[in-house]
Amino acid sequence: MPKKSQKQGDRLVDLPVSLSGQITLLTDFGTSDYFVGAVKGVILSLNPTAKIIDITHDISPQDIQAAAFTLLACYRSFALGTIHVVVVDPGVGSTRRPILVQAGGYYFVGPDNGVFSYILDNEKHARVFQITKKKFFQQPMSNTFHGRDVFAPVAAALSNGVTPENFGREIFDALRLGTLKVKASRSGMLKAQIIHVDRFGNCVTNVDGSALSESQAKRATLVVKGKRIGSIRKSYAESGPANEPFAIWGSAGFLEISVRNGSAGQVLQVERGESVVVEIETN
Amino acid sequence: MPKKSQKQGDRLVDLPVSLSGQITLLTDFGTSDYFVGAVKGVILSLNPTAKIIDITHDISPQDIQAAAFTLLACYRSFALGTIHVVVVDPGVGSTRRPILVQAGGYYFVGPDNGVFSYILDNEKHARVFQITKKKFFQQPMSNTFHGRDVFAPVAAALSNGVTPENFGREIFDALRLGTLKVKASRSGMLKAQIIHVDRFGNCVTNVDGSALSESQAKRATLVVKGKRIGSIRKSYAESGPANEPFAIWGSAGFLEISVRNGSAGQVLQVERGESVVVEIETN
Amino acid sequence: MPKKSQKQGDRLVDLPVSLSGQITLLTDFGTSDYFVGAVKGVILSLNPTAKIIDITHDISPQDIQAAAFTLLACYRSFALGTIHVVVVDPGVGSTRRPILVQAGGYYFVGPDNGVFSYILDNEKHARVFQITKKKFFQQPMSNTFHGRDVFAPVAAALSNGVTPENFGREIFDALRLGTLKVKASRSGMLKAQIIHVDRFGNCVTNVDGSALSESQAKRATLVVKGKRIGSIRKSYAESGPANEPFAIWGSAGFLEISVRNGSAGQVLQVERGESVVVEIETN
Repeated sequence: MPKKSQKQGDRLVDLPVSLSGQITLLTDFGTSDYFVGAVKGVILSLNPTAKIIDITHDISPQDIQAAAFTLLACYRSFALGTIHVVVVDPGVGSTRRPILVQAGGYYFVGPDNGVFSYILDNEKHARVFQITKKKFFQQPMSNTFHGRDVFAPVAAALSNGVTPENFGREIFDALRLGTLKVKASRSGMLKAQIIHVDRFGNCVTNVDGSALSESQAKRATLVVKGKRIGSIRKSYAESGPANEPFAIWGSAGFLEISVRNGSAGQVLQVERGESVVVEIETN
Repeated sequence: MPKKSQKQGDRLVDLPVSLSGQITLLTDFGTSDYFVGAVKGVILSLNPTAKIIDITHDISPQDIQAAAFTLLACYRSFALGTIHVVVVDPGVGSTRRPILVQAGGYYFVGPDNGVFSYILDNEKHARVFQITKKKFFQQPMSNTFHGRDVFAPVAAALSNGVTPENFGREIFDALRLGTLKVKASRSGMLKAQIIHVDRFGNCVTNVDGSALSESQAKRATLVVKGKRIGSIRKSYAESGPANEPFAIWGSAGFLEISVRNGSAGQVLQVERGESVVVEIETN
Repeated sequence: MPKKSQKQGDRLVDLPVSLSGQITLLTDFGTSDYFVGAVKGVILSLNPTAKIIDITHDISPQDIQAAAFTLLACYRSFALGTIHVVVVDPGVGSTRRPILVQAGGYYFVGPDNGVFSYILDNEKHARVFQITKKKFFQQPMSNTFHGRDVFAPVAAALSNGVTPENFGREIFDALRLGTLKVKASRSGMLKAQIIHVDRFGNCVTNVDGSALSESQAKRATLVVKGKRIGSIRKSYAESGPANEPFAIWGSAGFLEISVRNGSAGQVLQVERGESVVVEIETN
């Protein structure tokens, strides 16, 4: 297999990369049922040396967009050669395809429903394979729990060195969600939105460094629900009025709206999907 | 120690089997206190190579039946030779016995209060040992946290190769819960019940393949709270009216009642323990 | 580096001890975002053999005291040479110092805001280092997520054998919370308080064995919100009136107030911080 290379942030990534032995899990299974345990049991039955890391299992049931964002926000924190398994799968048992994605020096396993959409937006040299080889599935195979019966054993086989081509043919029409890119509605104004509200109430927008440069950010005002948020701070602790929302570059690379030691989501009464207008003062 | 063999699903299981090095935890400790950390710390202090896997810690406090069901639903997903530790233990510090169960190619460690009841129903060649040898316990030993002071060090010792007989004498009167078996009240009718409602609102009944054959299932109607649930679907995604409950064979081997992309528990307003009548049309 | 020794409970602990290869995490990140996954990814990128154990991620946002108590209650359950990473960090991005503590045969990494306060109260031969060497940090470094960009890579470097002195200079003014020690207001009376209410509703007081001897405990009556709690029981299961709160020595070494198979927190309607008076009858 020929090696390609690509720039990943500051890293030069060779594809395919050698396996890290690590498998992450990102699901909507919750943590009160037997689902996560069963998935881990299957993986470790097939590869006892695999290192399994939970990203989260608390994605809201069937919330594909939330899974896609959460994956985007952390997949590069892992060692190259890590296998990311995502199971948020409302179409389980239907004709939706199970897929395997090779991108940016990582592997991804899950349903073809958009969960890998932001990875595919982000990584130039991605390859997607439809998983069809039934010999890799658990038997008997349920129609309701492909996390255990399809994605876990496929991830385990992949971690054991089976190459992506062996699971099925390459495809070029993986399902995509709408882009996270912000729209410039007119000069000096961006139409953005809240794409995630985190545990602390920080409101993550889809404005990243490519949409708003450092120098533009200094002249930017965010408007949410008619409320003007003027300053972009460097840290949560920077002085300012209590309970006053401010903008800050967040850890996922996006502009966030925060309240110091409080919840911006509650103060602003906003949820995911809320519009954010970014006005950039002309020089 | 003589080897016995038994049929486990499609696998022939030798007892005792060699250890997998894996230890699972299933408790009602929650995840907000130090309890789970302490249990893991003790195990890893005694066996640094142990691989610890959480099944769940979110069993409702003292809910023995829920722990027993959750264990039943996933214990066979793990490698043979895995040690399953279950700590849902309202009788901690009392005279209830700590026990060690060897069954189906697995080991089980926990209190003798019924948590292993469905395993004992399921596995023919089970052996149960009362854990009495204090040399395996943490000292000083609390009266309130046997997960840390009894079950963790016993599981660690077992994972280090101490054989079951070394922890205490074999017993034959382990405490049992009522069976999950459905009752045939009259020809063509089964009296079943909801034994679990999962995170997605799927209502798991106690009807398994031994109670209802494939051909009978095709002629079956479930009645819950007076509502007739006619069809048994093959997948969640199969077409049908929205918000309409349907039956489906679930991943734990039981018939479940589900709503597509919704919660059957909420739609039907049922909880665990609700009666389900299965009417089977005569040919 | 010269070795010191100290008495730890019944163990003689040499400092520094050899690494256990284990790293624990205790945060307020919750488990529904990408935060915990990102921290683990960074650690395992830098030390693929590290064993990461979650203590909890469900500390209430910015609740330093709860993190300090939770750490105190379980740090000694882990193997000597374990690295405990605590990230409850309202001052992230400000001038608060990142620190590394070496104490009692363990290492601790986190912000200098009091989270290690009870460890420093507990361990005589503690050394504290301010973490300043930027070469150990992730680049680019965010101002909002030092768990990922500072504490994770520092813990990984430490687990790879970098000695504490290499991260920055020793300091002697680490921030301390108020002590947990109870006050004897007059002979025969202790002024104590509830320092934690756990998942089961057990109310942990700050009365430990050094404040109340075994013989005193037999003559003690606790008073909470005017209610007298007379008996100290040996186990939850010991007979007594249902729903009646009783005292019991808990697994963290403190006197707790409990209700059998119920929540003392709910029955007494108390939260953390509530006063508890301990009256000791004179002989």
